[in-house]
Amino acid sequence: MFIHMKELQYRAKPERPDPVFARKLQEVLGGQFGEMSVMMQYLFQGFNCRAEQKYRDMLLDIGTEEIGHVEMLCTMIAQLLDGAPADEVDKAAQDPLIAAALGGMNPQHAIVSGLGATPTDSNGFPWNSRYIVSSGHLLADFRANLNAETQGLLQVVRLYEQTTDAGVRDMLSFMISRDILHQNQWLAAIEELEAIDGPVAPASFPRERTVREATRQFINFSVGEESRQGPWASGPLPDGTGNFEYVENPQARGGAPELKPAAMHQHSMPGTGPYVANEGRGLK
Amino acid sequence: MFIHMKELQYRAKPERPDPVFARKLQEVLGGQFGEMSVMMQYLFQGFNCRAEQKYRDMLLDIGTEEIGHVEMLCTMIAQLLDGAPADEVDKAAQDPLIAAALGGMNPQHAIVSGLGATPTDSNGFPWNSRYIVSSGHLLADFRANLNAETQGLLQVVRLYEQTTDAGVRDMLSFMISRDILHQNQWLAAIEELEAIDGPVAPASFPRERTVREATRQFINFSVGEESRQGPWASGPLPDGTGNFEYVENPQARGGAPELKPAAMHQHSMPGTGPYVANEGRGLK
Amino acid sequence: MFIHMKELQYRAKPERPDPVFARKLQEVLGGQFGEMSVMMQYLFQGFNCRAEQKYRDMLLDIGTEEIGHVEMLCTMIAQLLDGAPADEVDKAAQDPLIAAALGGMNPQHAIVSGLGATPTDSNGFPWNSRYIVSSGHLLADFRANLNAETQGLLQVVRLYEQTTDAGVRDMLSFMISRDILHQNQWLAAIEELEAIDGPVAPASFPRERTVREATRQFINFSVGEESRQGPWASGPLPDGTGNFEYVENPQARGGAPELKPAAMHQHSMPGTGPYVANEGRGLK
Amino acid sequence: MFIHMKELQYRAKPERPDPVFARKLQEVLGGQFGEMSVMMQYLFQGFNCRAEQKYRDMLLDIGTEEIGHVEMLCTMIAQLLDGAPADEVDKAAQDPLIAAALGGMNPQHAIVSGLGATPTDSNGFPWNSRYIVSSGHLLADFRANLNAETQGLLQVVRLYEQTTDAGVRDMLSFMISRDILHQNQWLAAIEELEAIDGPVAPASFPRERTVREATRQFINFSVGEESRQGPWASGPLPDGTGNFEYVENPQARGGAPELKPAAMHQHSMPGTGPYVANEGRGLK
Amino acid sequence: MFIHMKELQYRAKPERPDPVFARKLQEVLGGQFGEMSVMMQYLFQGFNCRAEQKYRDMLLDIGTEEIGHVEMLCTMIAQLLDGAPADEVDKAAQDPLIAAALGGMNPQHAIVSGLGATPTDSNGFPWNSRYIVSSGHLLADFRANLNAETQGLLQVVRLYEQTTDAGVRDMLSFMISRDILHQNQWLAAIEELEAIDGPVAPASFPRERTVREATRQFINFSVGEESRQGPWASGPLPDGTGNFEYVENPQARGGAPELKPAAMHQHSMPGTGPYVANEGRGLK
Amino acid sequence: MFIHMKELQYRAKPERPDPVFARKLQEVLGGQFGEMSVMMQYLFQGFNCRAEQKYRDMLLDIGTEEIGHVEMLCTMIAQLLDGAPADEVDKAAQDPLIAAALGGMNPQHAIVSGLGATPTDSNGFPWNSRYIVSSGHLLADFRANLNAETQGLLQVVRLYEQTTDAGVRDMLSFMISRDILHQNQWLAAIEELEAIDGPVAPASFPRERTVREATRQFINFSVGEESRQGPWASGPLPDGTGNFEYVENPQARGGAPELKPAAMHQHSMPGTGPYVANEGRGLK
Repeated sequence: MFIHMKELQYRAKPERPDPVFARKLQEVLGGQFGEMSVMMQYLFQGFNCRAEQKYRDMLLDIGTEEIGHVEMLCTMIAQLLDGAPADEVDKAAQDPLIAAALGGMNPQHAIVSGLGATPTDSNGFPWNSRYIVSSGHLLADFRANLNAETQGLLQVVRLYEQTTDAGVRDMLSFMISRDILHQNQWLAAIEELEAIDGPVAPASFPRERTVREATRQFINFSVGEESRQGPWASGPLPDGTGNFEYVENPQARGGAPELKPAAMHQHSMPGTGPYVANEGRGLK
Repeated sequence: MFIHMKELQYRAKPERPDPVFARKLQEVLGGQFGEMSVMMQYLFQGFNCRAEQKYRDMLLDIGTEEIGHVEMLCTMIAQLLDGAPADEVDKAAQDPLIAAALGGMNPQHAIVSGLGATPTDSNGFPWNSRYIVSSGHLLADFRANLNAETQGLLQVVRLYEQTTDAGVRDMLSFMISRDILHQNQWLAAIEELEAIDGPVAPASFPRERTVREATRQFINFSVGEESRQGPWASGPLPDGTGNFEYVENPQARGGAPELKPAAMHQHSMPGTGPYVANEGRGLK
Repeated sequence: MFIHMKELQYRAKPERPDPVFARKLQEVLGGQFGEMSVMMQYLFQGFNCRAEQKYRDMLLDIGTEEIGHVEMLCTMIAQLLDGAPADEVDKAAQDPLIAAALGGMNPQHAIVSGLGATPTDSNGFPWNSRYIVSSGHLLADFRANLNAETQGLLQVVRLYEQTTDAGVRDMLSFMISRDILHQNQWLAAIEELEAIDGPVAPASFPRERTVREATRQFINFSVGEESRQGPWASGPLPDGTGNFEYVENPQARGGAPELKPAAMHQHSMPGTGPYVANEGRGLK
Repeated sequence: MFIHMKELQYRAKPERPDPVFARKLQEVLGGQFGEMSVMMQYLFQGFNCRAEQKYRDMLLDIGTEEIGHVEMLCTMIAQLLDGAPADEVDKAAQDPLIAAALGGMNPQHAIVSGLGATPTDSNGFPWNSRYIVSSGHLLADFRANLNAETQGLLQVVRLYEQTTDAGVRDMLSFMISRDILHQNQWLAAIEELEAIDGPVAPASFPRERTVREATRQFINFSVGEESRQGPWASGPLPDGTGNFEYVENPQARGGAPELKPAAMHQHSMPGTGPYVANEGRGLK
Repeated sequence: MFIHMKELQYRAKPERPDPVFARKLQEVLGGQFGEMSVMMQYLFQGFNCRAEQKYRDMLLDIGTEEIGHVEMLCTMIAQLLDGAPADEVDKAAQDPLIAAALGGMNPQHAIVSGLGATPTDSNGFPWNSRYIVSSGHLLADFRANLNAETQGLLQVVRLYEQTTDAGVRDMLSFMISRDILHQNQWLAAIEELEAIDGPVAPASFPRERTVREATRQFINFSVGEESRQGPWASGPLPDGTGNFEYVENPQARGGAPELKPAAMHQHSMPGTGPYVANEGRGLK
Repeated sequence: MFIHMKELQYRAKPERPDPVFARKLQEVLGGQFGEMSVMMQYLFQGFNCRAEQKYRDMLLDIGTEEIGHVEMLCTMIAQLLDGAPADEVDKAAQDPLIAAALGGMNPQHAIVSGLGATPTDSNGFPWNSRYIVSSGHLLADFRANLNAETQGLLQVVRLYEQTTDAGVRDMLSFMISRDILHQNQWLAAIEELEAIDGPVAPASFPRERTVREATRQFINFSVGEESRQGPWASGPLPDGTGNFEYVENPQARGGAPELKPAAMHQHSMPGTGPYVANEGRGLK
């Protein structure tokens, strides 16, 4: 169960309206790695958590914080949209700066949402739940979380560069700070879990059922061997089971596939003449 | 530029048809973390790579391998669909095992694809490119790759449990092996990159512009403190900038937001009476 | 069965081309509440109608009218796109008004549709059938229809403000008029149905199986009680079953959930060591 | 800002696992009118609210409650999935009841989510934000909310019929109760708003700019006049501006449209011979 | 403008309910190549048509017919759903045939649509407008139409095999007949257009601007030359500009690409240290 | 199995950056008929091919070539994005040409992909696998391929008109050349297949089960007979089974549909009073 407090976690007040930047800021609200994604990802991982309470509680604490980040971003975007010149079409025919502002806005901000934030990204594409991950495996999911916080931080930093509004930058600096914290947090949690089972997840598949050499070989699927030069091509495997091997020329271990002709009821075979594979009781 | 070799990288031949498992196997072909995803993710990261050639080449080597994994899965699924009893509707009315098989199949396998694999997941949902990540930042993307290989391995292991067909398990054991290798590989590559800039990515945002305490505080957004018990709540921050702090009670640092009334041209305000905010030259 | 008449229901002729407004106008053609949505919603409700003929006929009459509205909008958009300066890229490098026009257009109008209308919204997002509702319950669906006409009218009015072209405004004033009529119509139809079963739909769930107090209580899930001040917090319930009650502090009636560990075949449990939950006949 | 309490708002405990019903129950979690939809709809309306605080607070109170309903449904679904026989494939070949259970499950529950709830509907289709409405116009949005609660209640009632598990029905009866309350609440709030501006929304478009007769006429777009028999075809208009009129035969008021040939740069015209409309500086 | 006639174009009455087949039949209603697709494709092509009236009229005639086919399919599906045992969950625990029927149904038919047809395919995936093509180029679009009628006919024939209900087969035989007619029609129309400009569309790109040899060469991008054996590898080009050539070994004509490092404001470069590329007026 | 060669198939180097054109060029990379579509379409058709090896090999040869076209387009787009003025927001406030460039860019190029190509179209909509066709029927699929190459060529030609950059036009002229070749190739392959079974596909449905007159009649579903003037309305049917007939007035052959009331468990019937259709063991 959840409770709302009316104050924001942090300030969200721009110096001045900027409807073009409002469109861009949507990316970190409703984009693939926006705040809606981490909010829903952590909440679903928490609700579905079958592990110790400390994990569930931690996931839900952060998920709950992220609801508040969605709130901050919506508040900011609504204010950036104040003064959107949606009705200045005649002026725009004379003034290229107004024309450019109208062209750079998300038209749905002025038609659909009444100058409010939308649950979409910077191109107006709707958020969808395939952006999130909840697999039931803690280490797997914490890696998804580290991934989300990394892509998210990168995007917020890029947006910080694309505005000079001190109020917007103030809020973004807070969000950057929390993303830094969250990266640190998932790194710490991952380290804890890797200490139990090692770094390959899930660890529970028996190694004797693998194709052993295939677990060691970096295979060079190209002409030229630049890919040989990294730690992925030689040296110890991080899971401690041996060393990488570099295979210059990939070997095909399966033959050329040959599929059977399709079943008659598929009507895919040329030259067979008319037929009904399944006569049925329904003959005309 | 790419070249095709007619042989498969590994065997892909089931003992016997199993159209219900064919549906399930689609998950790791066309699902969120299926082979289509890693194939396209690595290819796009490689094509867009602005870093040293060894990274580009490595990404494209693996991306090229994954095209071949898509090929193996399609080949396997087509064979599992041989003998799909799509026309045995009258028998199904008598025989509940046939009825269950028909109900458990993906109907599109027998209507749309002619008993071939589809570029969709186990519920028939089409693959889409929001499943992939290509950000231009190597460390960020390698974490996305580790995430993809982890979720992917987990799903293949679960599918391995859901069949006892020796041929299917043979192919899955190879795919499991490659996923293990790829996890190891991304772990090694990540370690290399973290040695340069530290574990928070991107590292290039100046710390003096952050809200410093917010980069350290795990905030307890719930009643009760189970979340205090992990390495994310105390002890050193993995990026070496200090220690985690646990904040029992979150403080709201922003006031309650108040938004201005919407612009007149939005027609959102009750009680204003009829008007046209923008008279225009087009008066009736 | 349907018949086409070549004339439009109403004039659809702009004074002059305006490819930027063409993009915006797409919202009420192919957006969430555009004419494609009401057309398909009414047709599906009509085709599926299991009630008296007067309802089926009424739904299909309006659905049929809406096909003609799609026709009018397509005609208008095509004309607004006449003269789109898609080839004036060199001029655009000198003339910021041309540059802004090119930037504000939907690029697909000049690449994909040959200066024709597209079945998409103002951001080029494709129409999809999750925009429509057809539940088989008349009152439920008429509320969906009132909702669609209300959002639709609001959007058309906002678009009216964003152009001063007399021809466009002429057509929009007709569409506004029909949306006003349709709101009136659904209001009248809803009143008729509510007179039968009351305003809660469906009415057929037995009240003795509800949690009675939960059907009366507005629960204050926030700190502070501003939400107490409306007719939703006190006074009679519209369905006549009593009065609203305002609950200052929500009570949790379910305990803290505890989920069992996942089944072994899910491979989600840390620290268990390698295993195969399902040995099968397929042992390697 | 939000706070989490560890207890559920209401009990969510089934008598026994039922993975087939778990799939169905997903509809009211992640479907078009599931709890994720009302949660996000109320939160976005609240965050974007530019009206009096009582409306914002009310919206956020209910939105906050709905987060807790998502929590309850996830908890229930996870428990229904306990004991899913995902590894009993060999038994299923003998036992048609197991085969039917496997066929009726959502395969992603056992491959992707680790026997947890997914943010999808009963066919595994992902939730997306086009399910929600936030227009900035209170009356318009409250109608969207009434619509959502009506469709939602209808679906929960239908699901109640499709299970006889006392624990599931207990939770559903609570959700039914809240949906009844919420319908009452939106009805009350709508009545308050309609008292200000009348029932047509938005009311602010000047009636003298409409095509007046078009605001009164129900037009019979079919052969036969069954549609004449309802209150939508005669009698007073609910907005008090006159009476409905029934038009037996629709009149086309616009002529047959004629579009100009497309611009040369579109390369759509047959018979024109080769050309490049835009010579450019880039001649080969 | 359109008019509705209450009678169906053809009979649509099953012998008996069959909710499992109802799900399958959805494919040709709301799938990629279902009747919704051809209906919307022809209507949009007609509404956007800038060519002679005979083309516009022909497109709209067929589009109008297809609306009636959507009507027939909805009518059929609704009747197939009569008697869906959605409430027989207890019986299903005993009777595997009922269990299989429940598992093979689309759950949304009994939860969402009230035993009515849905605007979705056989997996419940919603129809979307990316299924249709309207490019403004007649020959290009007629090829899209031939494609749609071919895939559509194939699917209907496959569905015909999957039922033995005489009533269903009767309706399907009519739809098959119309698809045969429509294939013939597009073939005739294509022949007319190809006589004007030849078979390559658009014909208006000047051949002297092409890379001439690239317009003739089938390139063998594989090891082995099975692909040499078809009319695509030797013999005359259908457009009469010469003969196919078979290139055994593809030549790379572009060098290895090298991309510049990304701009500083993208924060993608490792090892650069903290910076803000765009200082702005907003310094903290 | 596939191999990568580091050189591009053809040059992909623009004269100068142009981030606005980069957005447009995305259409033929990740749009409905972009290179991702033909790449995946040919690969899936090849992997699923159950016909002679020459067809499989031909399909995979072309599919493999198309992977290289995706590579070329990504390379080109990345270079067009060099110098994107994403951080020149202050300059844009003064300089309308910069403002227009920022407004005309895809914001995700500067926020999400690090100035790299994205797997999306010119409006940022993600590629999805419903763009492709693989039916198992060769003639059906070759028509889909001809369709794809025709729409694709048309779009590339239009894009050629929208730039004057000699480097971009050079690459586009190569892509145009290959699309011309591929149209020729599918035309030749189609001719080969039509010689076997005739032009209606699939040919295997017995004509005696069709409604014969319906396979000949063009039906005039409109008022007025302009549609009579084409080869689709009179003259020989391309499949040689007779002549087209033109039906001036369509006849309805099915009566007016009447659906039964819905099952009680659907709770859709007004006026029935409260009930539970399925009492169950779970009575409260």
